[in-house]
Amino acid sequence: MKLSKLVGDRFKERPSDAVIDSHALMLRGGYMKYVTNGIFSQYPPLKRISKKIEDIIRQEMDAIDGQEVLFPVVMSAALWEESGRYESVGKELMRFSDRNGSPLVLGMTHEEAAVHLVREYGQSYQKYPFMIYQIQTKFRDEARPRGGLIRVREFTMKDAYSFHTSQEDLEQYYDKCYKAYQRIFARAGVPEVITVKSDSGMMGGNVSHEYMLLTPIGEDSIAICTECDFRANMEAADTIVENEQTGVLADLTKVLTPDQKTIEEVCSFLNMPIEKACKAVVYQKNMTDEYVIVFIRGDLEVNETKLTNALGEDIHPGEVTEDCGIVAGFIGPKGLPENVTVLFDRSLETAENLICGANEENYHMTGFNIARDFGKVSFIDLAKIPEGGICPVCGKKSITISRGIEVGNIFQLGTKYSKAMGMTYYDSEGNSQYPIMGCYGIGVGRLAASVCEARHDDYGPIWPITIAPWEVHLCCVRSDDAETKAAADELYESLLRTGTEVIYDDRNVRAGAMFSDADLLGVPVRVVVSPRNLKEGIVEIATRDKKIQKKVALADAKAEVLALVQQLKDEINSYEI
Amino acid sequence: MKLSKLVGDRFKERPSDAVIDSHALMLRGGYMKYVTNGIFSQYPPLKRISKKIEDIIRQEMDAIDGQEVLFPVVMSAALWEESGRYESVGKELMRFSDRNGSPLVLGMTHEEAAVHLVREYGQSYQKYPFMIYQIQTKFRDEARPRGGLIRVREFTMKDAYSFHTSQEDLEQYYDKCYKAYQRIFARAGVPEVITVKSDSGMMGGNVSHEYMLLTPIGEDSIAICTECDFRANMEAADTIVENEQTGVLADLTKVLTPDQKTIEEVCSFLNMPIEKACKAVVYQKNMTDEYVIVFIRGDLEVNETKLTNALGEDIHPGEVTEDCGIVAGFIGPKGLPENVTVLFDRSLETAENLICGANEENYHMTGFNIARDFGKVSFIDLAKIPEGGICPVCGKKSITISRGIEVGNIFQLGTKYSKAMGMTYYDSEGNSQYPIMGCYGIGVGRLAASVCEARHDDYGPIWPITIAPWEVHLCCVRSDDAETKAAADELYESLLRTGTEVIYDDRNVRAGAMFSDADLLGVPVRVVVSPRNLKEGIVEIATRDKKIQKKVALADAKAEVLALVQQLKDEINSYEI
Repeated sequence: MKLSKLVGDRFKERPSDAVIDSHALMLRGGYMKYVTNGIFSQYPPLKRISKKIEDIIRQEMDAIDGQEVLFPVVMSAALWEESGRYESVGKELMRFSDRNGSPLVLGMTHEEAAVHLVREYGQSYQKYPFMIYQIQTKFRDEARPRGGLIRVREFTMKDAYSFHTSQEDLEQYYDKCYKAYQRIFARAGVPEVITVKSDSGMMGGNVSHEYMLLTPIGEDSIAICTECDFRANMEAADTIVENEQTGVLADLTKVLTPDQKTIEEVCSFLNMPIEKACKAVVYQKNMTDEYVIVFIRGDLEVNETKLTNALGEDIHPGEVTEDCGIVAGFIGPKGLPENVTVLFDRSLETAENLICGANEENYHMTGFNIARDFGKVSFIDLAKIPEGGICPVCGKKSITISRGIEVGNIFQLGTKYSKAMGMTYYDSEGNSQYPIMGCYGIGVGRLAASVCEARHDDYGPIWPITIAPWEVHLCCVRSDDAETKAAADELYESLLRTGTEVIYDDRNVRAGAMFSDADLLGVPVRVVVSPRNLKEGIVEIATRDKKIQKKVALADAKAEVLALVQQLKDEINSYEI
Repeated sequence: MKLSKLVGDRFKERPSDAVIDSHALMLRGGYMKYVTNGIFSQYPPLKRISKKIEDIIRQEMDAIDGQEVLFPVVMSAALWEESGRYESVGKELMRFSDRNGSPLVLGMTHEEAAVHLVREYGQSYQKYPFMIYQIQTKFRDEARPRGGLIRVREFTMKDAYSFHTSQEDLEQYYDKCYKAYQRIFARAGVPEVITVKSDSGMMGGNVSHEYMLLTPIGEDSIAICTECDFRANMEAADTIVENEQTGVLADLTKVLTPDQKTIEEVCSFLNMPIEKACKAVVYQKNMTDEYVIVFIRGDLEVNETKLTNALGEDIHPGEVTEDCGIVAGFIGPKGLPENVTVLFDRSLETAENLICGANEENYHMTGFNIARDFGKVSFIDLAKIPEGGICPVCGKKSITISRGIEVGNIFQLGTKYSKAMGMTYYDSEGNSQYPIMGCYGIGVGRLAASVCEARHDDYGPIWPITIAPWEVHLCCVRSDDAETKAAADELYESLLRTGTEVIYDDRNVRAGAMFSDADLLGVPVRVVVSPRNLKEGIVEIATRDKKIQKKVALADAKAEVLALVQQLKDEINSYEI
């Protein structure tokens, strides 16, 4: 491919709306173009990267006996009603009606379609296990698309669905897929992707893992233990706290705390540590606006995903109105209006002699002991695990919090969908059973952007050779010089004949413009042919990351380039899972 | 791939809703499953066929300097408003709104997205010509999906867009693409696909061609001259008729024709040939329900596409109400209500002494001569070309009408989209110009179904080896026999090692079931290993179409199979464009 013919523009200025580097570089490098909120078109370089990622995924899915199928983008609402998700999923599910008024949805995930496809096929235990997957366009009507390809509305995704007759068989396959995913990320050039325990969210099921690329710009918070193997998404990390226990319970006392509304103000006013506060956090249910108040230890925060899971419905931060009976700033467990749902975080389970609101303007209580002063309650884990917190596995105070981008996920779904959609099989004894499912996703575009995020410098992406748009970037500096042009042309043709993917910059532009374009395209091997070099009978070869830079004889150029390409491939493919 | 593990069921009964063979066979063979009206999921065999067709298309598009990109499935209405098609396209354009109320559409074609992608890139004449293409899911909310994959709502399509600075350059590229399409159909195993002149319809532009696979179940009618090269879609075929001209004009006479309402009745009653009738055909405009009356020679039919193009708006057959002023059965040009649009077909241009309605119950006119009795009118070609009609190119009465499936189309769009969307470039003299566009489409699923329609017998598809789901179908008859199983296993493994695509039926089922499944999968080379054959030291090799059937020594089986696979590939690829 000649760069002079490559469709797409490259430019210097960082787009003002690009907050993260991969977004900025992929716009600047002519990889994609904004169409509308969360929707992009892809120029040839990104399409080539996507195709290579898809091929890696396809190979690894086929290697674990996956069979590629294709589900529709547009499905009938009836199919989603079968699973119950037409009702339960929020606005991110795009709902609309066709010319006859029949309700349709755009696929954001395809559990329903997968069960629909194999419901008749899978009627005998002898057909199990099997796995089907597709690589296709999905649409999720995100409220806030952002970060270029990191969070979009339309995206290409590989989604796979496995079907099993026992939990053991699912677990065995889940493990296979777990490893296939590690191979995929390693082959895509980001072996540092880690797995973390995750929350299953709207997918259902119990065990699930996310594959995280750690980066400060990540949307997810991940709790990692520095002392043991524990790694989990914050929302799936058990929060364990210690409370000093004296066994001496103080008297419950109402104290005047004029204008002291925040936890910090009250504790400071009463000269007590913040850990002694029984803090109230107010939410409202999305469906009904009913109030939900979470009591939690003063130093901790509520994890809203944990709270949503505990309630079984969506919530939003509460707005305390004048007539609702809640006294903002002075909320305590005792004396709340009856229609308020009250939950206690586990951090309060062993806490003694707490401070809490008195549900009366300008008054708090001290010496509050839940069992004695309020009664028996169920304590639920609703807190965000804090930096320096206790590891739920090894018990040491060794938790660090990192940010990460989720580049893949795997779920043990169980029988949620097979039950809801009436998919059964006959086991070897002729009994009807529900198959057990797993599902496994990777977003292609998000992976491309994540690799860019992890592999770039100020000048552009540094693509791993396995997913780079081309393998070799050949620059002919001074293509107006006949001899130079002839040498570069010949090298280009001879490399093409070996099947090497070459982008050839044959434009008559100055070297600076040429090199900054090459930096933006991020091709791993760069070859420069110039009159100055040719005078010495050499060409320059370098890797995009500048780790290798050498001058080789023109006559050896082809062999040297091929060897370097092979070396870079070997480095990536030698990664052991 | 082992057939025992292949996801999908095959069955004997023809589905009652399948009218055409490809639809029936692709359901019976486990190729696809109905999801909802005009929407199917694909099982692995069809996904494999699609992928091979896509790869052939991709290679041929790359060979004519196409650059693969990706446009979104979901686009903003604003983009389609730029071209004017948000208003002008009918209900087949799926319109809906997102969570914020922003209007969106599902892509049914991507001229707007193509112009959007390259509007900035193509600002200098030096960037031209270029062609971009994508292979992607499209959605068209068809009123009447039918024929399995022949007419669906959701489909995968390759759509390409070329950009040029002169009509000559477009024509040159159009010709390249014309030939690339011929290669694509030949390589997909249907070299008999013909090109016909077509109507450009909603795409705009003047010159366009359709690629047609002739088959009685086709939706399109095609006029083909048996004496010259002329071939056109009916709607794009000029209708030429001869009228006997005497120069002797009869007097205009009003005659009583009680209850003679149809053309046939009136002509028979008056003892005149039907060619002497000036027939009235009533339509109404879709938008306003205003009447449109076409006068046409009695033996001809109106082509509604020609009429739509002439009017510039959509029409439907008219319903003559009692109070509309039109006297059904007795309609003539003279004395119609003023708000009726009247058009004359070209067949009447040289006609003399016609019969027409008198616009009065039970009366017709004879001796009607348009110029003398009505005035000067513009005659427009609105008629369907008839079987045995006059070829508009060679002038012989040599037109035959065939049915065909449109498997591809190419359009010279001109500047319709670049003008509407304000895409300009500077020419070599610094003047601003609109680029000239071409566009080129192929539906992947429709092509698969068309090949099935053209290549099948009562028992299943006969896939050309270039797009077959597998190359070799290996049957192990009596897999419960250890020796037979071992021989078949070994042949399977040795073929796999050569990279041959083998589907291996290792099930312990009776030979009849095995062979009928093989017929439904339509794999071109079949190999049968059985105890009876092994006793003779041989295996059977046959092509799916039974043209080649032979017994070869077990020791030679692998080499013979490979040779046959190569032979079948060579046969297809030797086709010369």
